[in-house]
Amino acid sequence: MYDKRQKAIQNALNQNNLDALFVTNFYNILYFTGFRTLVPHEREAYALVTKKSTYVFSDGRYVDNNQFPISKQTSNSNKPIFKLLSPKKGLMKHLKEIISEEKIVKMGFEREDLKWSEYNTFQKTLGVELIAQDRVGIKIRAVKDTQEIGKIQKACEIGDECLHDISKTLRKGLTEKEIVWNIEKWIRDQGYETAFDPIVAVDANSAVPHYDPKNGNGRVKRGSLVLIDMGVRYEGYNSDITRMFFMGKQSDEVLNAYQTLLDAQTKTIQHISKIRKSSDIDIFCRKLITENRLPPYPHSTGHGIGLEVHENPKVSGTSENILVPGNVFTIEPGIYIPGKWGMRIEDTVLITSDNKIKMLTAYPH
Amino acid sequence: MYDKRQKAIQNALNQNNLDALFVTNFYNILYFTGFRTLVPHEREAYALVTKKSTYVFSDGRYVDNNQFPISKQTSNSNKPIFKLLSPKKGLMKHLKEIISEEKIVKMGFEREDLKWSEYNTFQKTLGVELIAQDRVGIKIRAVKDTQEIGKIQKACEIGDECLHDISKTLRKGLTEKEIVWNIEKWIRDQGYETAFDPIVAVDANSAVPHYDPKNGNGRVKRGSLVLIDMGVRYEGYNSDITRMFFMGKQSDEVLNAYQTLLDAQTKTIQHISKIRKSSDIDIFCRKLITENRLPPYPHSTGHGIGLEVHENPKVSGTSENILVPGNVFTIEPGIYIPGKWGMRIEDTVLITSDNKIKMLTAYPH
Repeated sequence: MYDKRQKAIQNALNQNNLDALFVTNFYNILYFTGFRTLVPHEREAYALVTKKSTYVFSDGRYVDNNQFPISKQTSNSNKPIFKLLSPKKGLMKHLKEIISEEKIVKMGFEREDLKWSEYNTFQKTLGVELIAQDRVGIKIRAVKDTQEIGKIQKACEIGDECLHDISKTLRKGLTEKEIVWNIEKWIRDQGYETAFDPIVAVDANSAVPHYDPKNGNGRVKRGSLVLIDMGVRYEGYNSDITRMFFMGKQSDEVLNAYQTLLDAQTKTIQHISKIRKSSDIDIFCRKLITENRLPPYPHSTGHGIGLEVHENPKVSGTSENILVPGNVFTIEPGIYIPGKWGMRIEDTVLITSDNKIKMLTAYPH
Repeated sequence: MYDKRQKAIQNALNQNNLDALFVTNFYNILYFTGFRTLVPHEREAYALVTKKSTYVFSDGRYVDNNQFPISKQTSNSNKPIFKLLSPKKGLMKHLKEIISEEKIVKMGFEREDLKWSEYNTFQKTLGVELIAQDRVGIKIRAVKDTQEIGKIQKACEIGDECLHDISKTLRKGLTEKEIVWNIEKWIRDQGYETAFDPIVAVDANSAVPHYDPKNGNGRVKRGSLVLIDMGVRYEGYNSDITRMFFMGKQSDEVLNAYQTLLDAQTKTIQHISKIRKSSDIDIFCRKLITENRLPPYPHSTGHGIGLEVHENPKVSGTSENILVPGNVFTIEPGIYIPGKWGMRIEDTVLITSDNKIKMLTAYPH
């Protein structure tokens, strides 16, 4: 599996006339090498893919003799070669050694991930030509293989089941925090992980698309409108779904808006069958809301999903992505009336190898 | 509170001859403005501190009329001024407007946080002198005020209580994953959050300092050695503690090593009363292990803790930090015998305003 993925980078090396690519993105390192540190926003590992080999660099805290044996590795091995970072031999020493051994002249780096200070150190130390690369790993990851699709599908199915059970527990008096905790407990009790901290937003709180229930005090009342945005992580792969729950009779304003939103989302998913340009899909969906005199939503229409909850392809007005088979992404328009209510409907969809649109989330709308 | 913090940056502006500092670090934005997005590793907000004002930039997904009212704000207000990012008016347009209004010429940025691509865009677009700054916000955050210390103290106390209850549930047959989940459930059931995913490592797994129980299959047996590294987040502030639990009689090798480790940790904490240089503390602690013919641990002796689990001051051999009153940090030496067993003892300590060392974690060793 990693062989195939490393070949994909090596093709990119050839295309971009590079001798190596230095990889810092947490999920790209995981994707290309299988190596994973504990916290995505703490820099504790690096990778380097050359024309001959793939190297992972990390420190003694992660040394695991089973997964990444340090000894007995040669650069002919198919597995990534683990290089131990220590106070005596840090990243720069290791890189200089490999650069010299493999005669690396042009080294690409991830322009959207490398920090200014890292670039600065490289420039002063390495003596190679540093060439900014635009989302190499991210673009490769956007096309999922059968195994990855299977994992996302399974994550979506677990999410559907969770929503099914949670919907039965919704009742007057529950706080947003309690519902969040019920969702998390359900997922963990089944032995899975959450894809992200669930968003549960009641009534006016649902008008804030990225509402954080940790900082709120919402509570379900008779007639409340409840937005639940949640996902499951299954073997590293994520699902994402948003549904609205109405706790009793709603005003015509709310019901009409919901119907408009549902129509817009359904038609947009049908529209993908005909059009492959992300930005057109975004514009199409947005228009179905605004032509009904409802306000445009302040976020993109969708996002790719996989190892990360938000990845390529982006479905937004400024996206340059063209959707292709193997892409998995969400379609999630919303309607938000600040201070009053908000709603969003989100599903995870796949473009199959025979170019059809498949809904991976199936919980009823 | 934010007034005082913003003044601290403004002092830094004067000292470093800057007109403004552009802030991208998730926790620095939170610390200086109170604004928090959902996921630390996704860039969804920015801040700019000038000599006159503090600005926060984020998009419509976070608009909350209560917390950050967009209208009715003037630059004379003490509160951060919220600037809404939209497809029509993005970050560059907003920054250029402020740069022109406030006549900003020299703009600092966080060298350890800004991405290469962000720097590149700034350089092409903004027409200001961009000056790399070394951990400005991180250094300010390293000295905690009374309120922050109170929150960390409380987080430590909750952690102690959790360990007390969890220790009673440890028994033969439990998997690492089950113990992790019991810890998480305990914390969440009390209405708090975990500081990080707890590490529970049984027997040989404990020899990997950053062992991830999600990827393992450890299970408690008769005579097992169990390492638990966990923390609590209370009102945004974290605690961190590691304890060893012995499920029955241990070999002399293990018992002697434990005694050496405990002595080393105790003496190091006493040593801080005399010495303030982080690197000396690291060397002191390490020597107490190695002079007993035990292997040096492959991580630093400790780390600052606060809004982040790992922050300044660092207690490592290469650290330049001098410890001062208000610093809160861990002391956590370990002994790891790959393939056999590992152990670590970790406490969170404070340097008080009268220059004394106070243990914030109190669960018995």
